[in-house]
Amino acid sequence: MPERSEVGRLETFSDGVFAIAATLLILNVSSRVPELAGGRAWLAYAAYAVTFVNMGIIWVNHHTAFTQVGRVDRTFLMLNVFFLMFVAFIPYPTGLLTEHLGRPGAERAALLYGGTLTATAVCTNLWWLYASRWRHLLRHDAAPRLVAGITRSYLVGPFVYLAATLVALVSPNVAAVLYAAIAVFYVAESSRFGGRTPDAARSDRD
Amino acid sequence: MPERSEVGRLETFSDGVFAIAATLLILNVSSRVPELAGGRAWLAYAAYAVTFVNMGIIWVNHHTAFTQVGRVDRTFLMLNVFFLMFVAFIPYPTGLLTEHLGRPGAERAALLYGGTLTATAVCTNLWWLYASRWRHLLRHDAAPRLVAGITRSYLVGPFVYLAATLVALVSPNVAAVLYAAIAVFYVAESSRFGGRTPDAARSDRD
Amino acid sequence: MPERSEVGRLETFSDGVFAIAATLLILNVSSRVPELAGGRAWLAYAAYAVTFVNMGIIWVNHHTAFTQVGRVDRTFLMLNVFFLMFVAFIPYPTGLLTEHLGRPGAERAALLYGGTLTATAVCTNLWWLYASRWRHLLRHDAAPRLVAGITRSYLVGPFVYLAATLVALVSPNVAAVLYAAIAVFYVAESSRFGGRTPDAARSDRD
Amino acid sequence: MPERSEVGRLETFSDGVFAIAATLLILNVSSRVPELAGGRAWLAYAAYAVTFVNMGIIWVNHHTAFTQVGRVDRTFLMLNVFFLMFVAFIPYPTGLLTEHLGRPGAERAALLYGGTLTATAVCTNLWWLYASRWRHLLRHDAAPRLVAGITRSYLVGPFVYLAATLVALVSPNVAAVLYAAIAVFYVAESSRFGGRTPDAARSDRD
Repeated sequence: MPERSEVGRLETFSDGVFAIAATLLILNVSSRVPELAGGRAWLAYAAYAVTFVNMGIIWVNHHTAFTQVGRVDRTFLMLNVFFLMFVAFIPYPTGLLTEHLGRPGAERAALLYGGTLTATAVCTNLWWLYASRWRHLLRHDAAPRLVAGITRSYLVGPFVYLAATLVALVSPNVAAVLYAAIAVFYVAESSRFGGRTPDAARSDRD
Repeated sequence: MPERSEVGRLETFSDGVFAIAATLLILNVSSRVPELAGGRAWLAYAAYAVTFVNMGIIWVNHHTAFTQVGRVDRTFLMLNVFFLMFVAFIPYPTGLLTEHLGRPGAERAALLYGGTLTATAVCTNLWWLYASRWRHLLRHDAAPRLVAGITRSYLVGPFVYLAATLVALVSPNVAAVLYAAIAVFYVAESSRFGGRTPDAARSDRD
Repeated sequence: MPERSEVGRLETFSDGVFAIAATLLILNVSSRVPELAGGRAWLAYAAYAVTFVNMGIIWVNHHTAFTQVGRVDRTFLMLNVFFLMFVAFIPYPTGLLTEHLGRPGAERAALLYGGTLTATAVCTNLWWLYASRWRHLLRHDAAPRLVAGITRSYLVGPFVYLAATLVALVSPNVAAVLYAAIAVFYVAESSRFGGRTPDAARSDRD
Repeated sequence: MPERSEVGRLETFSDGVFAIAATLLILNVSSRVPELAGGRAWLAYAAYAVTFVNMGIIWVNHHTAFTQVGRVDRTFLMLNVFFLMFVAFIPYPTGLLTEHLGRPGAERAALLYGGTLTATAVCTNLWWLYASRWRHLLRHDAAPRLVAGITRSYLVGPFVYLAATLVALVSPNVAAVLYAAIAVFYVAESSRFGGRTPDAARSDRD
């Protein structure tokens, strides 16, 4: 009788944290909108959409990387716990940004939002490099080109988010637009990626 | 040692979002009922039941369609993220409707509730048509009649929800009754469907 | 490459609803305790423990029954959605009971709490009888004695909960004690059951 | 067609409770920070991080132990329900500690926080000893040295947490530092453990 692999269990736990953190974003909208004037309601909707998509992108990346992971050890599990700690933190700066954008406190909110995404991207690199370089936790049949592609695209992440975060020191509004632009860019890139379907090749379950 | 297929992981993430969004509906009841007079408490209960069943129907449909999906690619994952973004949004207009039905603001609440369900139905068609027509992500042994039946029943969805939503411009009360009627209709249809058991044939796990 | 069976997907969705509804019970404690005097804090803790254990028992029963289920159809899925609708509702009457026990409104809170558990038990019988009698969704190798034992023990449930609920009409306090007693009784019975380990025989995953 | 083993279903339910309880910690930050002065915001962040990591450690330990579990019975399921009852309770004393540390009520909050972690550690021992000693629910190919190592490390847990909890009677501040120190210590130990990779040996899923 088959069982879930240990990697599978880490995926289930991670999927749970992603699903909950993304779904909690709506509490942010519910609790703030009643008191907000019309224009700010749209800001809450935009913050919900941008952050949900950003979290979806992080989940898709986690998913793609884990197709190449074949084993876990305790350190890898703990690195994922740190990663998930930042993922689960995301709803909080999202709420702050909704409340403070265009008002006093906007700079701190935009810094915390961008800082959280930057920390998430740094942690992504930590568990990925640990698995792929240091501890060789990848599957024996891991696709070298896909592994190299993941490594390259992950290394860019922290710098992109950090750059947008630093802009918040000058203008929180521009930083917020950049956070949205990053989400749009990744979605556009994903649909291009879809054309090549790197995953599809080996995930057929017939 | 077996592993979860990649389709399986998308199912787990989706199931998580469905389960959480449906379960968060109760917060809507808890936070509003204490302040509500007797009649409005019943309204909160009805909104809970109708929305939970509507989300259950969307989940059952997702489930049925995914029995035919054999592969994923990044675009399909992102289309599902957009779909889940609207699913997770549902608790918010449910709360608005509970609070405003029969009061000022009822029209906007009923429009947002119907609009969210319409957007969910549109996204359902997007990921399904992408998988079944454009990218051929279906299983090799997908049942052609079931695939055609899913396509037909999904195409109806956005129009049904859009029609009910447009009624909200005239009467939010009638629109709310229609939202409930759609749920009742789908449940009735499901039990008829059950008689034919299209899924059961190939899901035996003995 | 293996996949999750369709039964497995229903289990994942159900497990999600159970896990979330049980975990949301703590919000009930957090939001009420600060304002409560010492004695009422203990009441909130007791309500948390009794309800968590009651939900745990319902989950264990769901788990035991599903070891015998081999297929699903749409009607069975919808019956489970109704069942989960009541499971996800449980945190709300738990909150009411915590707030009103020994105060005005206790009777209504105790009735709603018991009524929700009764409805959950009725729905349990509906999906179980549908699967085991009407539609023959059980595994081909289902154990007849275990199936008969599940049927017998499920049929008792609604009457036990209904009896405790009716007591609430006379005394909400006595009803609350009965709800706790039912939880204690089932736990005691489970440990006796453990001695026979009906599940263990065929769940070995070596 | 393969199915989830029964152990797998208990893991999914447990992973759900862990994921939700950990993610709910952020609500604790969101609801308290707006009203808190700068210094207390950092306290809320620290409480979030320490508690998330503590829960991650408990999850990693659960994960490691379950690699050796091959069967379940009803008593084992109920022992896990009790265990999860304390896991799901953790967000509540975390909130109390955030609010009261360095203020009136700090002692009670620190006692409740430590008491909950102690109870979780006691329950961990209960289900593990039940599985490994009393009922022989382990896999036939369980690794004796790993089993003995788990037993030893689990037995230490309740004493470590109880000692830190008793310190709260003298100084809640020192107790809070100890709770953080325990988390740091386990993380450090995990990375050392990772070097030996006891799990990795048999979890390869190629």
